[in-house]
Amino acid sequence: MKTLIKNGTVVNATGSALADVLIDGESIAAVLAPGSTLLGFDVEANVDRVIDAGGKYVIPGGIDAHTHMQMPFGGTEASDTFETGTRAAAWGGTTSIVDFVVQYAGENVLEQYRKWHEKAFGQCAIDYGFHQILSDVQDSSLTAMDELVAEGVSSFKLFMAYKGVFLSDDGQIVKAMQRAASNGSMIMMHAENGSVIDLLVQQAVAAGNTGPLYHGLTRPWQAEEEATHRAIMLANLTGAPLYVVHVSAKQAVDQIAQARDKGQNVFGETCPQYLYLSLEDNLGARSDEWGSFEGAKWVCSTPLRAKSEGHQHHMWQSLRTNDIQMVSTDHCPFCMKGQKDMGLTDFSKIPNGIGSVEHRMDLLYQGVVDGKISLERWVEVCSTTPARMFGMYGKKGVIQPGADADVVIYDPNGHTSIGVGKTHHMNMDYSAYEGYEIDGHVDTVISRGKVVIDRGEYLGAKGDGRFIKRGLSQYLI
Amino acid sequence: MKTLIKNGTVVNATGSALADVLIDGESIAAVLAPGSTLLGFDVEANVDRVIDAGGKYVIPGGIDAHTHMQMPFGGTEASDTFETGTRAAAWGGTTSIVDFVVQYAGENVLEQYRKWHEKAFGQCAIDYGFHQILSDVQDSSLTAMDELVAEGVSSFKLFMAYKGVFLSDDGQIVKAMQRAASNGSMIMMHAENGSVIDLLVQQAVAAGNTGPLYHGLTRPWQAEEEATHRAIMLANLTGAPLYVVHVSAKQAVDQIAQARDKGQNVFGETCPQYLYLSLEDNLGARSDEWGSFEGAKWVCSTPLRAKSEGHQHHMWQSLRTNDIQMVSTDHCPFCMKGQKDMGLTDFSKIPNGIGSVEHRMDLLYQGVVDGKISLERWVEVCSTTPARMFGMYGKKGVIQPGADADVVIYDPNGHTSIGVGKTHHMNMDYSAYEGYEIDGHVDTVISRGKVVIDRGEYLGAKGDGRFIKRGLSQYLI
Amino acid sequence: MKTLIKNGTVVNATGSALADVLIDGESIAAVLAPGSTLLGFDVEANVDRVIDAGGKYVIPGGIDAHTHMQMPFGGTEASDTFETGTRAAAWGGTTSIVDFVVQYAGENVLEQYRKWHEKAFGQCAIDYGFHQILSDVQDSSLTAMDELVAEGVSSFKLFMAYKGVFLSDDGQIVKAMQRAASNGSMIMMHAENGSVIDLLVQQAVAAGNTGPLYHGLTRPWQAEEEATHRAIMLANLTGAPLYVVHVSAKQAVDQIAQARDKGQNVFGETCPQYLYLSLEDNLGARSDEWGSFEGAKWVCSTPLRAKSEGHQHHMWQSLRTNDIQMVSTDHCPFCMKGQKDMGLTDFSKIPNGIGSVEHRMDLLYQGVVDGKISLERWVEVCSTTPARMFGMYGKKGVIQPGADADVVIYDPNGHTSIGVGKTHHMNMDYSAYEGYEIDGHVDTVISRGKVVIDRGEYLGAKGDGRFIKRGLSQYLI
Amino acid sequence: MKTLIKNGTVVNATGSALADVLIDGESIAAVLAPGSTLLGFDVEANVDRVIDAGGKYVIPGGIDAHTHMQMPFGGTEASDTFETGTRAAAWGGTTSIVDFVVQYAGENVLEQYRKWHEKAFGQCAIDYGFHQILSDVQDSSLTAMDELVAEGVSSFKLFMAYKGVFLSDDGQIVKAMQRAASNGSMIMMHAENGSVIDLLVQQAVAAGNTGPLYHGLTRPWQAEEEATHRAIMLANLTGAPLYVVHVSAKQAVDQIAQARDKGQNVFGETCPQYLYLSLEDNLGARSDEWGSFEGAKWVCSTPLRAKSEGHQHHMWQSLRTNDIQMVSTDHCPFCMKGQKDMGLTDFSKIPNGIGSVEHRMDLLYQGVVDGKISLERWVEVCSTTPARMFGMYGKKGVIQPGADADVVIYDPNGHTSIGVGKTHHMNMDYSAYEGYEIDGHVDTVISRGKVVIDRGEYLGAKGDGRFIKRGLSQYLI
Ligand SMILES: [Zn+2]
Ligand SMILES: [Zn+2]
Ligand SMILES: [Zn+2]
Ligand SMILES: [Zn+2]
Ligand SMILES: [Zn+2]
Ligand SMILES: [Zn+2]
Ligand SMILES: [Zn+2]
Ligand SMILES: [Zn+2]
Repeated sequence: MKTLIKNGTVVNATGSALADVLIDGESIAAVLAPGSTLLGFDVEANVDRVIDAGGKYVIPGGIDAHTHMQMPFGGTEASDTFETGTRAAAWGGTTSIVDFVVQYAGENVLEQYRKWHEKAFGQCAIDYGFHQILSDVQDSSLTAMDELVAEGVSSFKLFMAYKGVFLSDDGQIVKAMQRAASNGSMIMMHAENGSVIDLLVQQAVAAGNTGPLYHGLTRPWQAEEEATHRAIMLANLTGAPLYVVHVSAKQAVDQIAQARDKGQNVFGETCPQYLYLSLEDNLGARSDEWGSFEGAKWVCSTPLRAKSEGHQHHMWQSLRTNDIQMVSTDHCPFCMKGQKDMGLTDFSKIPNGIGSVEHRMDLLYQGVVDGKISLERWVEVCSTTPARMFGMYGKKGVIQPGADADVVIYDPNGHTSIGVGKTHHMNMDYSAYEGYEIDGHVDTVISRGKVVIDRGEYLGAKGDGRFIKRGLSQYLI
Repeated sequence: MKTLIKNGTVVNATGSALADVLIDGESIAAVLAPGSTLLGFDVEANVDRVIDAGGKYVIPGGIDAHTHMQMPFGGTEASDTFETGTRAAAWGGTTSIVDFVVQYAGENVLEQYRKWHEKAFGQCAIDYGFHQILSDVQDSSLTAMDELVAEGVSSFKLFMAYKGVFLSDDGQIVKAMQRAASNGSMIMMHAENGSVIDLLVQQAVAAGNTGPLYHGLTRPWQAEEEATHRAIMLANLTGAPLYVVHVSAKQAVDQIAQARDKGQNVFGETCPQYLYLSLEDNLGARSDEWGSFEGAKWVCSTPLRAKSEGHQHHMWQSLRTNDIQMVSTDHCPFCMKGQKDMGLTDFSKIPNGIGSVEHRMDLLYQGVVDGKISLERWVEVCSTTPARMFGMYGKKGVIQPGADADVVIYDPNGHTSIGVGKTHHMNMDYSAYEGYEIDGHVDTVISRGKVVIDRGEYLGAKGDGRFIKRGLSQYLI
Repeated sequence: MKTLIKNGTVVNATGSALADVLIDGESIAAVLAPGSTLLGFDVEANVDRVIDAGGKYVIPGGIDAHTHMQMPFGGTEASDTFETGTRAAAWGGTTSIVDFVVQYAGENVLEQYRKWHEKAFGQCAIDYGFHQILSDVQDSSLTAMDELVAEGVSSFKLFMAYKGVFLSDDGQIVKAMQRAASNGSMIMMHAENGSVIDLLVQQAVAAGNTGPLYHGLTRPWQAEEEATHRAIMLANLTGAPLYVVHVSAKQAVDQIAQARDKGQNVFGETCPQYLYLSLEDNLGARSDEWGSFEGAKWVCSTPLRAKSEGHQHHMWQSLRTNDIQMVSTDHCPFCMKGQKDMGLTDFSKIPNGIGSVEHRMDLLYQGVVDGKISLERWVEVCSTTPARMFGMYGKKGVIQPGADADVVIYDPNGHTSIGVGKTHHMNMDYSAYEGYEIDGHVDTVISRGKVVIDRGEYLGAKGDGRFIKRGLSQYLI
Repeated sequence: MKTLIKNGTVVNATGSALADVLIDGESIAAVLAPGSTLLGFDVEANVDRVIDAGGKYVIPGGIDAHTHMQMPFGGTEASDTFETGTRAAAWGGTTSIVDFVVQYAGENVLEQYRKWHEKAFGQCAIDYGFHQILSDVQDSSLTAMDELVAEGVSSFKLFMAYKGVFLSDDGQIVKAMQRAASNGSMIMMHAENGSVIDLLVQQAVAAGNTGPLYHGLTRPWQAEEEATHRAIMLANLTGAPLYVVHVSAKQAVDQIAQARDKGQNVFGETCPQYLYLSLEDNLGARSDEWGSFEGAKWVCSTPLRAKSEGHQHHMWQSLRTNDIQMVSTDHCPFCMKGQKDMGLTDFSKIPNGIGSVEHRMDLLYQGVVDGKISLERWVEVCSTTPARMFGMYGKKGVIQPGADADVVIYDPNGHTSIGVGKTHHMNMDYSAYEGYEIDGHVDTVISRGKVVIDRGEYLGAKGDGRFIKRGLSQYLI
C-alpha cells in the first residue's frame, strides 16, 4: 500500500514546511517538495492512494506516554480496556501509547510484565509500549530491570505515595535509581508525600469532611513540592535520570526548573487537566444529578490545583519555557455509576483518575489557537519529545524517511465539540471536558501506513497496534 | 544539476536518521529512505552526481550569525574581506553568515546599509545576511528599522560600551526596543558597562599596566553581568525580544537563565573562544616572538575569562541546558603585524577581535567527541537555532524538501589539524587555535546545490553567495 | 539635671525588660532594676525629676536617617526649615535626624558642606548629622570624601537619576565607591534609571498624559530594579558597602536580598509611604478641591507602587525578614499651594517629596499593633539600626549607660489622630496621612537629657540640637 | 553578695559600651556608667567584691542549647555526666545548657522527662534546661507536649534518621508540628534522610568499606539537603516554627536561607566542628596509635563535610549573613577506649558524637580574631540568640538589670591552648581540638551571681546549677 499525502504543511518540533509525504507500506518512504513529481517521475500516479492535505497540518501521530488501560485499582478496573482506550486514542490523533505494567507489592515483576502482554496483545488499535511499575524493590526486581531494558521496557515508575500498595521508601528508590544509572533506563516518579497525605486524609474523614473537594485539600502543594524535591535529590545522589509524572503544582515545577538549570537530567510531564481544570471549578463543582459529589468526576492524583494560586497559568508558561517538557494524559477513566460512586460518603474511596486519551491533541491544539504555545511546540510536547524521552524517536515522533508512518492530518479550520454524545469514544459515562469547544479537527489518522480514522469514520481493527520495543532515552543532556 | 547524497546519517536538532538527500538545482527536493529507489523509480540513475556519505553525517550547513568581515575599527579594518572570510567559512562547513552593517554615531543608517551591500555584493563564497548596528538612535534610525525589516534585516545590534563610537544610552536603547517590540524585530546587545570599563582602562594605563592581560582585567565579569541584567530589564519594560551576543561570564548566563525561567524572550550566544580559551592561558600567554604581547592574539570583547573561576565549564553546561542557545564566532580577525601591534605599548589600542569563522563547526564537533554536547545539539546550536533565531528557518538550518541545498558532509572518522600552514584559510598571520586537533573533518560542503568544498579542494567562486532576505525570528516563545 | 524614669518597660532591639533609667546631665548614667534603690541608696530621692513610665515603653529616641530640610529643588525649597522640621520630628518621638548636604553638579563639595552647617546651626530642636550628596565626582570631591569622614560625615549619596542635576554616570559612581572602599565610608544610592525615566516622562507628556498618576507610571519598577542591581554590582566590583535609599519595588528588594545572601554589604531602607500608600489609592486619588491633581500630594521618588502588584505587603515582610534593614522618611515636604501646584499642567514639574518626619514612629508602631512587626523590631528599624548603620551607635540608638539621654516614653494605651488640625506640626498645608489613626502615643521625648515634649507640650527651644559627628558604619558584616 | 565588675567593655548583640555591672545576689542590679559612683553614692565601697575588668570583655554567659550529657546510645552512655559536662562548660565560659530528654520509641514521654530531672538534679555546675526528644508521636506524646510547655520545656526534637531508634515518619512529624503550631513550641529537627543513609551504610559495609571515613561518605550532603527541605516544607504546611540542628552542608544552609527569605520561621544551628573540621583532615586522619581508625574521634552526625566542597567557608559566611542563627556544640562525648573502639571493624558501630562544650566560646572567639565574625556577632550567636530562640531571654543572654547574673569576663589579650593535659576538663580520653591555640581567654565566670571560675580555679560546686523553666521562643518573625 502506497499513500501520498500531498499539499500539506508538515509540522515538526523546530518548524514547518510545505511538503508531500510518501508512505510505502508501514513506513515513510520520502518527504518531497510539493508537486508530486520527482526528477520527472510522477509520484502521484504511482501510489495507491492520494490524500490531499491542502490547508492542513501533517504531523507525526500523537504519543501519549502515560495511560492506564484496564488498570486494576481498589477492587475495580479502569473502564477503558486496551481495545476501547486505544481506539479512542486513535479518534483523537494519538497513534502510540505507553501504558503501565502494574506490579503491586509482593508480586513478581516479570510475571506481571507477561500478564500485561497477554492483556494487550491483539487488542490495540494503535501501537503500544510499556513502562514497568516497581512497587517493592527486591533483588529480583533489580535483576528484572536489566531484563526489561533488553525487552524494550526502558522506564520504571516508582511511587512516593500509596503506602502498602505502590509506595517505595527512599532506600528502595535509591536502589532502583542506582540500577537505572547503570543500565541507562529512566526513573519515573509519582511525587507526592504519601505519609503526609495519608494523615491529612484520615484527619479530614475523621472530621466529617468527606466530599470530593477534600481530595484536593488533603493533597496540598507542599506534599507534591516536597516529594519532587526529594526525588530530584535522590536522583542527584545516584546519577539516574528522573521523569516526574503528572506535575500539577507550580512549586514542583520550580524545583524541576532549578535542577535543570544546574544541569541535572530531570524532566517534568503535565497533563491537560492541570492546564485547564481547577480545584474550585471542578473538584468543587455541584450538579443537580450528583450534588457536591459532582466533583468526583475530577478526582485524580496529583489533584487539580487552586486557580486562585495560579498553577494553571504557571503550567502553560512552563510548557513554553521548557521547564515542563511534555504532556501526557494519565488516562485512567472510571465511570461515575458503579465506580466513582464507591466514594459517595468518603472521598478517599473514589477511584482516582480522569480519562482524556482522546482529547489531548485537541486540547493542546487549542493552546496554539489561544496563543499559549506555538504550533511547533504543540508537536514537540505531544509527539516529538515523548518519542525522544522514551527511546522511540526515529520510528515515532517525526515525519522523516524510515519512520513509522504514524501521521495525523489536522484541520485548523475544522471544529470539535467535546462531550458525551458528541466527540466521545472512551468507555466513560461522563466527559471530564463536557462542553469544551476546539477550533481544530483531527481529519485523518494513519497508523503504520494504515488509515484508521478518516473524516469521522473508524477504519481500523482490534489488533492493528503492535508492541513498541523501546530503546533508551534520547533526550538526556 | 541534480545530486543525490546517499547512505549518510542525516542529523537534525531532534535526532538522526539514515536517509538519502536529493538535491535538484538549488534546493532539496526530497529526503528519502536509503536505497535510491522510490516506488521502483531509480533515483540514483536519474541524477547528475552521486555522493556516497556512508559512515558520515549529513547536516544542514553551518550558520555563523555573528561575523565582521572587513569591519572598519580604530583606523584599520578586520583583515578578512567578504571574499576571504566567506571562503574560509566555507572551508569550515559554514554556508551562511550574518554580518553587521556598521553605523557609527552621526552616520545615516540606510546609507550605511547600502554601502554594506556594495561591499559584499559579488564577493561572497556563501550566502550572507545582515544585522544592522544602531549607534545613535535618532528618529531617522527608528524609521529605518521598519524599512530594514521589510528589506530582510530583522535584527538590530546596540552597544552598552564603546562610548562615542557605538554606545547607546539607556533611553536610546529603550527607544529602539519599543520599535522592535512593534515591528517584531530582534534586539541584539553588546552587554558590557562601557562607562565602568573606560574608567578601569584609564586607571590601568595610568598605573602603567599596559599589557594584553589588562584587557581582561579591566573588563571584569561584573561589567558584563550588570549590562546583561540591565538589557534584560529594559527588554522586560518594552516587550522586545533580546539576544545577548558573545556571552562569556557565567554570572551573565545566570541572568539570562533567570529571565528565561520567568518566560521572557531572552537569548544568549556564546563563541568558541569562551568555551576553549581563558584569561590565564591566552591573554596571559608569552612567546619568544612577542613576549607578553603574545596575549594580544586573544584580545576580544567580551574578554576571555579566568579558568580558575570556572566560566568555560559553566558555558559548556549552559549549552547543554539551553540556557545558552547558540554559538557564533564574532569573527573579527586582525593580524599581529600591522594591526594588533598598534597596541604594543597600550593594550587599549589593540584592535579587538578573534578570527574563527573557519573553525566553529570543528571546534563544536570536538565538544561532541568529548561528551560535552550531543550530536543533535551540535547541529542545533550551529545551524538550526541560528536559522530559527534570525528568520531563516525553512530555507536554512534544516535538511528538508524546499530548503536551500546547504549541506555539509562531516566525517567523524576524519581528522583536522588547525593552525597556520595546516587548516587555515582566513586572512590572518596567526591562528587563535594553533595546534588544536579535531577528531572529525569537513569533507564536502554544498551551498545552494553547488559543491564548493570537496575533499580538500575549493570548487566555488567569488559571488556564489547571495543576500539572505530574512523574516522575523521563529524562535520566540 | 538628674532624671529618673521609673517603672517603664525598656525596649531594645533584642528584647524588653522592666528597668529604671537614670539620666545625669546629657547622658544615661545607669539602667537599674526597678525599685529606685541601689544597694540601699535611694535613687529617686536624689534626682531632680522623676517620670513614672508604668505601663509604657521606654525606647531610644527615633533616628530618621533620611531628611531634606529646606532643600532647594527646582526653584523652590522644601517647606520645612531645620527649625520647623526638627521640631515636628521631636513631636513624633524622633530625637536625631541625618539630613543631606546638597552639592549640585559644578558646585564645590566642601563649600556646600559649610553652607549647610550655617543653615542648620542654632536652628534645630534635636540632634542632627549630615550625609553628603555628591553630584559630580571630580578629583576634589574624592579628596573631600576623606576630609568629610574626619569631620563626622561618613556617608555619601549618589544618584542614578536626575540627569544634569544630581546624576552620576557609572564611572563616576565607581570612583566614589573606590574611595569609600578605602576610607570605610558608606555609599548611599538613589537607585532609579534616570535615562529611561526621562524618556518615559517625555513620551508621556508629549502624549498629553500630564496628571500625577503618570509620575508613577513613568517610573516603573523595572527602572528601580535595574538601578538597584547595577548599584549592587558596582559595589561588588569595588568592595564598597552600599545602602539603597527609599526602596519601593519588591523586585528591588529581591535584588538586595540576593546580594546579602551572598555575603555582600548591601542594605535597604524603606519609608512609611511604601508600606502604607499606593499608586492606585494615592497617586490616582481625586478630590473636590484638586480633582485628579489631588495625587500631587504623594508625588515622590521612588514613586508609590501599585497595590495590585503586592509591593506594600512584600515590603512589610521584608522588614520582618531583615531583607530591608531600616525605615526613614525621606522627609521632603512641599505645600500644595505655591509649590506642588507648579505642576498643575505637567506632573514632571511637581516638586518631588512627602513629609512624614513627624509620623514615622507612630506609623511603624501601628505595624506592631497590626502584627506586622514585633515591638523589638520597631525599635531596631527606627532607632538601633539607623544608629549602627551610620556610625552613631553607643551614643544613639540604645538605652545604656554612657549613651546620650535620647529617650522616648511611648504609651501603648494612648491614641494619635494624624491630620491637619490634629497631630500635625510640619510646615505643610496638607497631610500625607490625613485621617490615619494610631493605637499609641508619644508621651514624653527627652533629647540629651532635656525633656522637649511632654504630654502635648513642646518644652524645647531652637538650637537645642547639636551636630552629630558620626563614625564609620557599625553594621557591616 | 554584691559584686561590682568595673571598667570592662560590655558587649551585647548590637554593640559594645564601657560600663560597670552591679550584681546583687543572683541578678544584675544595674548597668552603670564607669566610675563607681552614682549620684555621689560610692558604689564600689558598698559591694562585697570588686572585679576589675579593664581591657576585657564583659559578656552574658554562653548558652549551649544542644548537649547530650550521659546520653544512653547503642549500649553505652555519653562519657560526660551532668556533673562533669556542666563543670567543663563552666570552665569554657558557658553558664547555661539545654540538654535533651531522650524518649526512645515505645517509651513514655513524661516518664522519661521525670527520669532526666532525676539524673540532672543536684549535679550541675551551671543552669540547665531541657528539650524533649519525641521518637514516636503517639496521642500521649501530643498531650505531653502541652504539659511540657507548661513545665518550661518548649522545644521538641524529632529525627528523620535512626530508624527504629529515633526516626519519626513524615506523618508523625506533621502531627507533632500541628501540635507545636497550636501550643507555640519549637520543632527541632535532625535532618538527614535515614532511609537513604541506612542503605548506603549497609552497601559500604557489605563492600568491606568499614573505616571511619565511610561514616562521612555514607551520609552525603544530598541526604542532609533533602531532609532539610522536607522538614521546611512540612513546617510550611503546618505553620510550626522549625529549628534545624547541627547543619553541616552548604546546600542545607541554602534551603534554610530560601525559606527565610520567603518569611517562614526557619532557623539553623551549626556547631564548631562544621566550622573548623573536615572529612579530609579529620574523618580521614591517621595516627600511630589508631591508624586510620584515628578518624573515629570525629564520627558525629551530621558528619564532617569535605573541605574541597567549601562547606566550612560557606558556614562561616552564613553565620555572618544570619542564614545560620546560632552555634551550639551537640556535645556528645565518647572515649576512644571502650566506646569509640566498639566500631573498630565497622564504622557503623562507632558511637556518634564529639565533645566540645568546653571550647565553643573560645573557638568562636577565634573567629572574631580571624576576622570571620564581629565581636557582637560572637555574643549574639553564642548567647543572645540561643536565649531568644528558646525562651530564656531577659533572664539569660543579655547584660541588663533583672537578668540572671550569668557573666563571663573574657580577656582578648589572654591565650588558651586546647588539648589533653592543657585546657581539657571534659571526661574524654582525647580532644577533638588537640593543638588548637586560641587568642583569648575565659578569665572569670559568674553563674547567677556566684563566681564559679576565676583565673584558673573552679570555685563552684555540684548542684549550683538550677533547672531553667523556659518560655516560648522570642525569636519568631
Ligand atoms: Zn501517579
Ligand atoms: Zn498515572
Ligand atoms: Zn560586541
Ligand atoms: Zn561582534
Ligand atoms: Zn532619592
Ligand atoms: Zn531623599
Ligand atoms: Zn541530631
Ligand atoms: Zn544532638
